[in-house]
Amino acid sequence: MLHTTVVEVGPRDGLQNESVILPAADKVELIRRSVEAGVRRIEAVSFVNPKRVPQMADAEEVMAAVPRTPEVSYIGLVLNRRGLDRALAAAVDEVNVVVVATDTFCVRNQGCTTDEALAAWDDIARAAADAGVPASMTIAAAFGCPFEGTTPPSRVAEIARRAHAAGAAEIALADTIGVGVPRQVRELTRLVRRAAPGTPLRFHFHNTRNTGYANALAAVEEGVHVLDASTGGFGGCPFAPAATGNIATEDLLYALHHSGLTTGVSLEAVAATGAWLGERLGKPAPALLGRAGDF
Amino acid sequence: MLHTTVVEVGPRDGLQNESVILPAADKVELIRRSVEAGVRRIEAVSFVNPKRVPQMADAEEVMAAVPRTPEVSYIGLVLNRRGLDRALAAAVDEVNVVVVATDTFCVRNQGCTTDEALAAWDDIARAAADAGVPASMTIAAAFGCPFEGTTPPSRVAEIARRAHAAGAAEIALADTIGVGVPRQVRELTRLVRRAAPGTPLRFHFHNTRNTGYANALAAVEEGVHVLDASTGGFGGCPFAPAATGNIATEDLLYALHHSGLTTGVSLEAVAATGAWLGERLGKPAPALLGRAGDF
Repeated sequence: MLHTTVVEVGPRDGLQNESVILPAADKVELIRRSVEAGVRRIEAVSFVNPKRVPQMADAEEVMAAVPRTPEVSYIGLVLNRRGLDRALAAAVDEVNVVVVATDTFCVRNQGCTTDEALAAWDDIARAAADAGVPASMTIAAAFGCPFEGTTPPSRVAEIARRAHAAGAAEIALADTIGVGVPRQVRELTRLVRRAAPGTPLRFHFHNTRNTGYANALAAVEEGVHVLDASTGGFGGCPFAPAATGNIATEDLLYALHHSGLTTGVSLEAVAATGAWLGERLGKPAPALLGRAGDF
Repeated sequence: MLHTTVVEVGPRDGLQNESVILPAADKVELIRRSVEAGVRRIEAVSFVNPKRVPQMADAEEVMAAVPRTPEVSYIGLVLNRRGLDRALAAAVDEVNVVVVATDTFCVRNQGCTTDEALAAWDDIARAAADAGVPASMTIAAAFGCPFEGTTPPSRVAEIARRAHAAGAAEIALADTIGVGVPRQVRELTRLVRRAAPGTPLRFHFHNTRNTGYANALAAVEEGVHVLDASTGGFGGCPFAPAATGNIATEDLLYALHHSGLTTGVSLEAVAATGAWLGERLGKPAPALLGRAGDF
């Protein structure tokens, strides 16, 4: 049976966009539960300006407390050299650099244009290589932008070419505001594979308009077997305030397992964690599996 | 561009499973709004025992008040000859007969086994043909049953063969409890096409476990271009109480339109109706498009 790797991004992308700020101990508990459920890659923290993202101010404290085993890889999100230095000091296993595909969104998200973010990426990728830590790039707003509309696929492909040129360990295509449909997944997969030959791909979907799970299954059909998801489906996007969040890990597991794919992750355990996280955040998880149950 | 027909089932399947019983005037308003939005087939009412389904007790009153134009086809759900007689008297354009694919569910849903429901179907189909009214069959629990587990596809195919033998105008495959995934959609499509050659197919999905929209797009990819949906995503299943409802018409329109398919239905108008219906039912629509907006 084919294996799909689910990258748990709840501790970072999920919690970063919630108004309730959880204590570090809860974040570590979320990570510990994910590891216990069978997750092997976790986007645990981001090393960004704590004034801009107070939810991630305790990144070092979290990374110092997560369970370390050789099978589990922790990803730290960074946007610049200062972030990379913090990530390396915190001994992350991988770094992930976000480059937003549209200038307006990039400026609002991280205070620089796409070209400037790519320059930062080149710099980070070089330094990460020197440190022996794999660096991946997430191309955010790869499907559409709240300010500029549909993102031209050629622009995504060009950014992917730059990722590849600097030796990206992996390229993630993110539908940050949840506007994509499967035919875009297929088109982007083809274009990015051509622009970044041999570089493994990952997809990151939000279910803002109920297309996230269809997109995830389309990605798998295209042979992309690494998918981001967030326990409980928490998260969202600060520029799409009414939006629901990331695709939920438990609901993704349902779709994958019933499609005959293995993940090594326990749906039951993740659903229980989604319910627990909902209690901690004081709101019900958007995930449906916690309510409906497995079948 | 390919055209997909969206059959609005909110007035029947949507409202039938809500605890709030709307007055007939609201049901007519929902139907009127759907017609105005561009919908051309509407499952408007069911002619069943009003003691068992009080939400549909005013079926005649609703049918007497809906806007009639030659382009719009109203479907009435019936389970027996008495229901058919009522449907014909109310001048429906089509009748739809439900046969549940598993005995336990069929007995609980309509008080008879699958074989008994098939005998009723034969009888109804004959009488409807005599009256010159097209009769379709919906095979309920075609993917899975809350009591018997996964439904054997061969059982669904055998029921479809019976539908075809009695001259069904269309066969609908319903994932009544929302457990299906796209690979089942593809398998069932192939099997049912073989069992009922030439009979048009329709799919009916619930989004109980977040697979409904992926299933809908898989159906379209298989060439099945008639899909049920419910404005606002209301509905559900009495045997799956925590379940969310039918796939929402507005969210389905989003997925279809952005996939390059035409429907002739205005997403904006349907989303507005979903919000209106939420007010009437006293709860927010499960649909996401009403919150997130089109893109």
